[in-house]
Order: sequence, then C-alpha cells, then structure tokens
Amino acid sequence: MIRAGIVGGTGYTGVELLRILANHPEAHIHTVTSRADAGKRVDEMYPNLRGFVNTVFDEPSVKSISACDVVFFATPNGTAMRMAEALLEQGVKIIDLAADFRLSDPTIWERWYGEPHVCPDLLREAVYGLPEVNRDRIRTARLVANPGCYPTAVQLGLLPLVEQQLIQMDGIIADAKSGVSGAGRKAEIPMLMSETGESFKAYGVKGHRHLPEIRQGLEQASGEPVGLTFVAHLLPMIRGIHATMYAKLHGHQAVDLQNLFEAHYRNEPFVDVLPAGSHPDTRNVRGSNRCQIAVHRPQDGDTVVVLSVIDNLVKGAAGQAVQNMNLMFGLEETSGLRSVALYP
Amino acid sequence: MIRAGIVGGTGYTGVELLRILANHPEAHIHTVTSRADAGKRVDEMYPNLRGFVNTVFDEPSVKSISACDVVFFATPNGTAMRMAEALLEQGVKIIDLAADFRLSDPTIWERWYGEPHVCPDLLREAVYGLPEVNRDRIRTARLVANPGCYPTAVQLGLLPLVEQQLIQMDGIIADAKSGVSGAGRKAEIPMLMSETGESFKAYGVKGHRHLPEIRQGLEQASGEPVGLTFVAHLLPMIRGIHATMYAKLHGHQAVDLQNLFEAHYRNEPFVDVLPAGSHPDTRNVRGSNRCQIAVHRPQDGDTVVVLSVIDNLVKGAAGQAVQNMNLMFGLEETSGLRSVALYP
Amino acid sequence: MIRAGIVGGTGYTGVELLRILANHPEAHIHTVTSRADAGKRVDEMYPNLRGFVNTVFDEPSVKSISACDVVFFATPNGTAMRMAEALLEQGVKIIDLAADFRLSDPTIWERWYGEPHVCPDLLREAVYGLPEVNRDRIRTARLVANPGCYPTAVQLGLLPLVEQQLIQMDGIIADAKSGVSGAGRKAEIPMLMSETGESFKAYGVKGHRHLPEIRQGLEQASGEPVGLTFVAHLLPMIRGIHATMYAKLHGHQAVDLQNLFEAHYRNEPFVDVLPAGSHPDTRNVRGSNRCQIAVHRPQDGDTVVVLSVIDNLVKGAAGQAVQNMNLMFGLEETSGLRSVALYP
Amino acid sequence: MIRAGIVGGTGYTGVELLRILANHPEAHIHTVTSRADAGKRVDEMYPNLRGFVNTVFDEPSVKSISACDVVFFATPNGTAMRMAEALLEQGVKIIDLAADFRLSDPTIWERWYGEPHVCPDLLREAVYGLPEVNRDRIRTARLVANPGCYPTAVQLGLLPLVEQQLIQMDGIIADAKSGVSGAGRKAEIPMLMSETGESFKAYGVKGHRHLPEIRQGLEQASGEPVGLTFVAHLLPMIRGIHATMYAKLHGHQAVDLQNLFEAHYRNEPFVDVLPAGSHPDTRNVRGSNRCQIAVHRPQDGDTVVVLSVIDNLVKGAAGQAVQNMNLMFGLEETSGLRSVALYP
Repeated sequence: MIRAGIVGGTGYTGVELLRILANHPEAHIHTVTSRADAGKRVDEMYPNLRGFVNTVFDEPSVKSISACDVVFFATPNGTAMRMAEALLEQGVKIIDLAADFRLSDPTIWERWYGEPHVCPDLLREAVYGLPEVNRDRIRTARLVANPGCYPTAVQLGLLPLVEQQLIQMDGIIADAKSGVSGAGRKAEIPMLMSETGESFKAYGVKGHRHLPEIRQGLEQASGEPVGLTFVAHLLPMIRGIHATMYAKLHGHQAVDLQNLFEAHYRNEPFVDVLPAGSHPDTRNVRGSNRCQIAVHRPQDGDTVVVLSVIDNLVKGAAGQAVQNMNLMFGLEETSGLRSVALYP
Repeated sequence: MIRAGIVGGTGYTGVELLRILANHPEAHIHTVTSRADAGKRVDEMYPNLRGFVNTVFDEPSVKSISACDVVFFATPNGTAMRMAEALLEQGVKIIDLAADFRLSDPTIWERWYGEPHVCPDLLREAVYGLPEVNRDRIRTARLVANPGCYPTAVQLGLLPLVEQQLIQMDGIIADAKSGVSGAGRKAEIPMLMSETGESFKAYGVKGHRHLPEIRQGLEQASGEPVGLTFVAHLLPMIRGIHATMYAKLHGHQAVDLQNLFEAHYRNEPFVDVLPAGSHPDTRNVRGSNRCQIAVHRPQDGDTVVVLSVIDNLVKGAAGQAVQNMNLMFGLEETSGLRSVALYP
Repeated sequence: MIRAGIVGGTGYTGVELLRILANHPEAHIHTVTSRADAGKRVDEMYPNLRGFVNTVFDEPSVKSISACDVVFFATPNGTAMRMAEALLEQGVKIIDLAADFRLSDPTIWERWYGEPHVCPDLLREAVYGLPEVNRDRIRTARLVANPGCYPTAVQLGLLPLVEQQLIQMDGIIADAKSGVSGAGRKAEIPMLMSETGESFKAYGVKGHRHLPEIRQGLEQASGEPVGLTFVAHLLPMIRGIHATMYAKLHGHQAVDLQNLFEAHYRNEPFVDVLPAGSHPDTRNVRGSNRCQIAVHRPQDGDTVVVLSVIDNLVKGAAGQAVQNMNLMFGLEETSGLRSVALYP
Repeated sequence: MIRAGIVGGTGYTGVELLRILANHPEAHIHTVTSRADAGKRVDEMYPNLRGFVNTVFDEPSVKSISACDVVFFATPNGTAMRMAEALLEQGVKIIDLAADFRLSDPTIWERWYGEPHVCPDLLREAVYGLPEVNRDRIRTARLVANPGCYPTAVQLGLLPLVEQQLIQMDGIIADAKSGVSGAGRKAEIPMLMSETGESFKAYGVKGHRHLPEIRQGLEQASGEPVGLTFVAHLLPMIRGIHATMYAKLHGHQAVDLQNLFEAHYRNEPFVDVLPAGSHPDTRNVRGSNRCQIAVHRPQDGDTVVVLSVIDNLVKGAAGQAVQNMNLMFGLEETSGLRSVALYP
C-alpha cells in the first residue's frame, strides 16, 4: 500500500482527496495536515468521512510528512514550493494541486503570482500532470504539477485541433463557467449563497491566472504563439466546469471533426467524446474523473465550437491528482477512480 | 386608463405582464385569456396575484379582445400572426411577445420557424420593439414585435461597437446563458429541477432561432453582412440572462470603449453602463427592466469583451413589452417600470 | 417627506430597506451609515440601486442621525440600545430591526443575548412592532422593536388559535425553515454556497433566540404559560420562511378553522388566509410584505397544522419596519409596500 | 455473479440502481426494461453510464425477465403486483421499490392506493425490506417490499424510542422534507425548476401515502396504536430527505437518549448516530446508503427531537434495495455500497 500524505486537508480539494483515497485499493492515507485544525478529528469536520477516515489533522512538518511515499499539496499557492526540495531529498514524491509548478518560466510565474519563485530549478524538473499529454513523463516524475481546473477542461477540448494545426492560433476564445467550489473553502462574502445563488457573472476578465497556463499548454502542443481570450464565469451551483471554446478553422476545410476527436481520445480512460450533435451536461461527470467533450461546426461554417465538461474537484483537481499518483507508482491508471457520476 | 388584454396569460411572460400591469398607474388589465384554463380564477393559479388581479381567464376570441386598446400576445409562435389582421382592423394595437413579427424577411422566418408566414404584409408594417433602436417608430406603430430575450441582451451589448463600425463583422461570438424560466411553463422532462438543477449545458449549438434575429439587428445597424456564432446555455437558476460577447477591433485602435458605451446609452432609462472594470451580475437586474453592461479589453489587446445582463422575463419580455406600450400610447416611458431589482 | 436614516446599511436588511424606501412616495433616505464602508458609494456596493440611491455611506454618529425623523437600526444586536436614549431625546423615532427591544423582561434578554441590557427602562416603553397585534400602540410609539423573522411567521400562524384558546398551550411545535439570507451578510464558511447549496439541516435545536420572543407573544395573547418546541432549519435558497406549526385542539371540537382564520385576518392588508386545502409556497410572497397562511386538520383528527410563509427580509424585517413607520407617522399602512411577489 | 434485472429502468430509482449495480462486485445487470424506450441505448439516455452500462432498454416481459436471479421493480405503483406471481413461480426473487407490497393489510392498501390489491396472498409472504428491523426475514425472503423514502428516514429515527416504549404513542409529529428527485422523472409543471427552485412548500397535508406505512412500522415495533401526524415538504434541491421528529417522553425521565440511540444502532453498517449536539446535514449522505441521526432534548424538557437524514434515492430507494439483495443472496451486506458521500 502506498502511504499518501495530504498537506492542507481542510479545503475542498483536500476533502475530495480524502473521499477518493478512502476507497483506493492500493493507497492509504498516512497523514493529513492542517495548521489551523491540528488535533481535530477529520470526521468531526467532515461527517461524510465517518467510518472511512479515522484520524486527526496533524501539524504540517517535513518530519511528519517525510514518512510518506507521496504527498499531495492541497494548499494555497506558494506553499509547496517552500517544502518541495526538502521532501524530494527524503525520497518523497510530490503532487502539487496548487499552481507553484505549473508554469515552466519563472518570470511568467512571478508576473501572475506576485512574488519570485523560490525554486526555479525544480520548475525545470516538474512535470505538468495532464496525463493525456505527458503520460510517460509523469510515470517517472518525482514532482508533478497538477493542472488547474479550467486549464484541464480547456486544453482537453482544444488539443485535438491544436496538435493537428487545424485552427487559427491567434484568435481562440475560451468562455468557461465554474461551480462555486472552485473558489475554495474560505470565509468570503462574495461566495455566500445569498451572493452566488440564483445569479451569474463573469470575473477576472482583465486577466485570470489560468490564462498563461492554458496558453503554455497550447503553445507546446502547436509550436506556435497563441492568442487566447479566456473569460471565467461563476455558476450558481457547487461542482462542475463547462468550457465553450470557439476557433476558426484554417480555410473552409472538409475535415471530419467528430472522427478527429474520437481518434485522438480513443484510448483515454477519462476523456469521453460524445456522439455528434451532443451537448455535454456537467451533471453527467459530477463526482467522476471524466471529461466529456462534444465538437460542433454550426451551420457548417468555419467556426468550430467545442464543449468540454469536468467536475472541477475531480478531473479538475483531486481525481486527476490520484490519476497522476497511479501513473507515478505503476498502478492501473483508473485505480480508485471508477465511480459513476451522480445523476440526478 | 389604457385597457390592456393579454392573450395566453398562463405562461411565465403572461404572469409577468400581470405582475407589472397590476401596479401600472395608467393601464389596467381588461382581459386575460387562456384556452386551457378558461373560467379559472387567475389568482388561484398564481397566488402571488391575490388582491391584485381579481378576474378569471377568458376564452380567447377576437370579440372579447377587441374591446382592448392594446393586446399583448404571450402565446406560442404562430398564434399572433393568425389574429393580428382582425384585431388591427378593430383598431386594437398589438404587441407580440412571440416571434411572429420579429424577422422582416418571410423566407427567413419560414426557414427557422418551419411554416410559411400567414401575413407577410404585416411583417413589413411591424416595428421591431427595441426602443433603444426604434423608439420613434414604436411611438407610431400599430404592431410591435417584442424582441427575444437573448437578442435584447446581445444587441444592446454590441450596438455601440457595430454602429461605429469598430469591429470585424465576420467573426462575432455571442456566448449567452439563460435561466430556466426562458424555456417557459411547459411540462417537459428536460426542464425538471432534477434535470436542470446543479448542472449546466449548452443547447441548440447547431442553430438557435434567435440567431437570425440578432443577425438582422446587427446588419441593420452596421449595413454590413454579419458573421455571428451564437451559443445558448442553460443556467441552474430561474431568472436572468448573461451574454458574453467577443469581437475583434479593426486594427489595434486607441478608442476609449468605456466612453463610447457611456455616451451611446447616456439618455437611455433602461440601459446602464457600469463603471470600467465591472462585471455585471444577473441578480442586480432581477425583476427590473434594466440592462447592465460592462465593456472590457483584456490585456489591452484587439479583442473586446462585452458583458450584458437582463432579466429575461422583464427587459427580455414583459417589461420591454410594457415599455413599448408606454411609447405607443404617449406615456412616460418608465411608467410602471421603476421597481428596484430584488437583491439578494 | 419623512426623513429616514438607516444605521448599518450594508447588511441584507439594510439594503432591503433601501430598496423599499427608494420607491416610497412619502419618505426619503436622509442618511445611510456604515462604520466599515464610510465614504463608499452605496450603489458601488449594491449596483441594483444605481439611479435610485445616489449617496455614500456615512460614519454612524448621533449627530449625523439626529436630523432624521425616524431611524432604522439594521445593526447587530446590542447596537441600538446604546444609541436609543440619545436619539429619542433629540425627537428621533426609532425602529430597531435587531433584538434589543423585543423581550420585555431584561433578565430573559440577558440570559439569551449574553450581556445585561443597558437601558431596561426603554424596554418598558418599546412597542413590539407586530401591527396585527399592536397596531394602535405602534401609532403612538417613539420606539418600536421590529419582530424577528421566525417570530413573525410563527405568531401570525398561531395567534387565531391562541387568542381563542382553542389549543393545548403546553405542547406547541413550530418547525420553521428559512432561506440563507436570514443569516446575514457575514463572511462565514458555513454560509458559503458550497456548504448550504443542495443541502438541508436543522440548527440551534438546543435553543434558538427566537424561542423566548415567540413564547412571549403567545403568552401575552393567551394569558397562559406556553410550552413551545421551536426548531429552525436552513433552506438551500435565499429568501423565504416557511413555518409548519402543530398543536392539539382542546377536545375533538367542531370548530371551523378556516372561518376562524379568515375572520381573524379579514381586515389585515398583509395577512392572506389561503382557501381551504392550500399549501402556501414561499415564492408567492418573495419580495412582498405579505404573510400567506393555510390551516389544516389532517384526517379530521385533533391535531391542527398551520402553514405560514413570509419573505424573511420583507414581512420578516425591512417591509414590516416600513409598515411600522407608516403607522408611526400616520401614513397609509400599505404605502410603499404594494409590490407583487416575484414569481417565478 | 448474480443476474439482476431492472423493470422500469428510466426513472430516477432505475438509473440509481444502474449506477450502483454497475460497480457491484458480485452482481451484473442482465436486463433493463422500459416500455416507452425499448431499443434505445441506456447510455444515450444517461450519459453518466457511458462505459459502464453497454446495453439497450428491453421490452418488459416475464420471458425476458425470468432468466434473472433477482428483479428490481422501479415502476409505478400497481405494476409489480401484476407480474410478481409469475416471476416467483419461475424462481426469480423480487425486490419491489414501489408500494405494492409495503402494507400488509389489503384493505388499507386499497384505501390509500385507490384500487383493490390483485394478490393479497403475496402480501402475507412479502417481507418489509428495512434491514434494521427485518434482517433475518429478508435473508430468506423471495419477495421484498423496499420501504418508501420518508418511511425509511422516519422509522430509523423513531424506532429506538418506540421499541423501548419511552414516548407517548398518540401524538408523534414527523415533519419531513425531501429533495425534488423524490417526485420522479415525470413531465409535470409543478416539478419544473421554475416552480420548485428557490421556493419551499408543504404538500399532501391532508394525507400522504407514506403515513399508513410509517404507522404500520411503528405499531409493529411498539405493539400499540400510533397517533402520527406526518407532513411532507418539497425542498429546492435534488437529493436528500431530512425528517424532524417530535415526541413526548413518558413522564420527565432521566433516560440517556444518546446512549440509547448509539446502543441501538451499534452494529448497523448504514445507520450512523452522530455525537450529542449534532445537526445532520443531507449533503453528508448524498450518494451514500447511510442514514445519519441526531437526538436532542431541548432545554432538558419532556419533548425529544430526532433529526434523521438519508439520500432518498439511495438508502431511501436503490441503495436499500441493493442492501436487501445482498442479504437475500448471502453476500456481504455492504457489498457495492461502500462509496463515500459526495461533499461539497
């Protein structure tokens, strides 16, 4: 059994890791840390875990964590990069669910995250944990940067087009909508139900931190500079991301987009291309590690519309992190991740 | 007092007309018809109207309706065009909240609505009831085609750019999201709360009937052919539309978009351009006849992003219809429409 | 025009007062205070008020407030009682929407609110602002204690039975459910949408502060001690309270409960007894100052079930406060309060 | 592997059975029937099942079903009783999720369900499938009547009190609230999201069919006649039932209710008594087969308040049905039912 540690176990990605690992056949939870709630029973805070997680939150420390085989950082940005080096030296593998190792260029990281990166050398080593792109590198990685939620939905939706260089790369639109759990478990007035329920708004139009992450992924796939407009919106619901992507095809091509997408993802256990004409619904991936995608070409014009849905806490965070763990330890990639989405 | 009639008073736009007209200082409800519920008390079906509407649903007939000064059609598509001629002959003015008179070209109407138009002559006479565009023509109209909900939000957001010919007209994207009340009060499984709650999806990507209506409006404003991709989505909430529009500016211009929008709508009572950097929230127009708009230019690039919100049942339907009535009868345009949006 | 002041205008009851008073024909908002947000434009925080409230939040002080004819305290408990004496001396009338003056016995107040009452003399003067009980006393009051939201719904539902002494007073059950806006606009994790959405729970079963308030009202009406079990629950929605009350009839009486309720509330402008067999729905009073009530006697047994709904922010707070203001200043009781509930 | 059949697989209990059985280690889905959708792929209707259920809906017929070891009826009331005899003769075991076999007295059945029972003999044989009461009888049953959703939550909350005869049996109150999925997947206007979202109401106060079922269970447990008032309410959410029960203790006893409940359910895998002072939250059992219960005695009076939550589609329907299947076939009782509730 793999000994897994979770640093920052009290947020939504932390408790989702606990939910998934509690039933993982080949891993068990060795430690869960929380500075603020150390000593408190995990299942007192999260009664859904009663009978599944029988432990208390620990103080976070390299010592307590270094007995683990793998550590998941479900912490705010800037935490993992301060502990990574020491843990790697102890032979602990790391999966960071925050943004510390997602951008390979430390100057871009600094611009978007507002402080210098403390271990730019590790940035070079870190593998971006999108298995559909980097599966082989993840298998041998010590340090995996788990992708952001929006970047997962957007990249999976655009990669088949981008890799085949079918679309104009300078005018891609990604209009993305997320449930409120994406904002985390923080006491903030704008995330009260009275503020977010029965309402809808865009946010961060000026510039969202997931923009450089998506652009980096698309540029690596295409080898070209990418002009991307990314607008995030807040949905009056808890779980789920829906990304609607718009791009112009080069010329007015006869390419069969449905075939292209199906072929691209034929062997992917967690990417499901829906039949032609479908409209994926976020509920159909709720609680599951799956991305469902549909591709459209309205009125047979030169604009392609891709619809891509994930559960932001699963394929967009904890589920993908466990998928990465499975790869890093040579397990079946779907181990612990076979549950069916909860409908209705 | 203006004698108003409502044909098809049992749907959501019908009951919203009743709510607004019940407190209108210069109009009263003369008749409300419903074929299915004739004889039933209105406030038995809609207890929110107890004490405000003290009548029963009537059988719809030209005779019962022709005593009105104005008739609102809150009926399915294809109803108003079968009764319009007879009513106009009786001197009754008509405001159709369905789509029968929105498209000026009967062949386009037939293509999108699946049957020939029965009175193409009246199509020429009908005035498209967007007061921000056609105010003067509405004042003298006998027959007003009340705009669709999406077309209202989208056109108000794009018109300042289109009229000034600042954007490329061949690649406009309108990504629009609507609350479920837009689907009407019909017994259909896909609109059950178990199906639409806590979930989000696109629909009609192949082609939505509001597409030709929006295109017509933008082409009239610009004098150019318009290439528009319009994707509608269903929000897990009841009221509200949020349209996110993307367009490319001609060249990399120095135009002050904030000023442009503020100047364009300076004297409009129901269009409110928010301060620079804002993100309009549908809740802030819930129950009100207002459209709130923000304009952005992310990273100062050549893509402009417009955010536009309305209440689909008010500015997107019944409120705009009453605004049109006010104009047609020489009343204060805001009469009966001054309520503040319900927040939270 | 009555000059109205609002102390603590940034919470949900404060903004609801602003919404109602913005359209009140005989009152205008003279000052709105907020310690934390002094100097900020009101409509910057609440964009639904743009064009209706054209002012900034003031520092709260007796000086700034004493120019008002009436002051609404939309503050946390313990604030109004510290400013009341000084304001009354200046001739300013007070309506406290918090709990400072609701309980007439200062020892009971201290037990439930955790500190001694600072002006027990004023407790004797204060009038409990439930117009359906105390209309005449409110007309001449200087200081009105606006009732709590649950106590309004529960008392209006039980008073016809209690005043006629039809029920056993030692075993009344009030099972009440409230939307989340009742918890106020405070940054607290338990009120995040991720915590309260799509879920339901009871709270404060051990003892809720509205229990002594309800008991006081029922004991005054019946002249008997009251044994009441009150359990509050949190609904996954924003506005609305539904109280379900259970009581045993004395003996197995032949009383016509429907008649009793209709007669009791015949002349009340804001209490609406629904037809026999009805189930009131919170949506039908959303945004309105109305209480809708239905009374049932299942299987003709000796248990009576009363269903009572209000909008917690209107009849349960700001609307009832304006109703009290109308009475205190000799205005039409319904002035500014005639809007129809927003459905759907 | 047990061959399981589902009759009526297109409703919410049907698709929930599919979700659970798809991952059951010792059963597989042999046939799923639907008269209306025969021939259609299951995963076309329910895309969450893509890759898990690879079959089409069959025509329902005794022939197609009789090859199963067990058949689940997820049909409207009155269906199973017309097919049961023939199937039992073929050696097929039956678990009926509708109400056909829940009431042991056919005259009571007829009174509440409006038609005579067609096989009263089987009523005598049928075992009421509440494992916490009838575990041993279920193990040997051929025909199990799966309990209703409300009856499961209410009985589990009251049984410890009733079996010990601690409460007055003539005045029990059960105030129960359910998510909308309990109303099933039927095209009905009252269940549209525009009707049920952001609102709350009671229904069926006059008499709900689950009342005689609950009364029967409590009378069997206590040996006394039971006076029960049961009121059902509709929550603006999808999954979850919360029952709040009120009862008077005999005398003013010193009984330790917390101990009583913990002892009663110590060995139950799916009933979880929360620590003293808790308020169970429906989200903490969402998607799981668990019932969480808390017991309170407000102000140490003689009224006991029990709070009981389940997922109406799992412990209230499909999960409990699989639990019964596990017992009937000698499997581990928790097989296929170990998933953790989905929070947030």
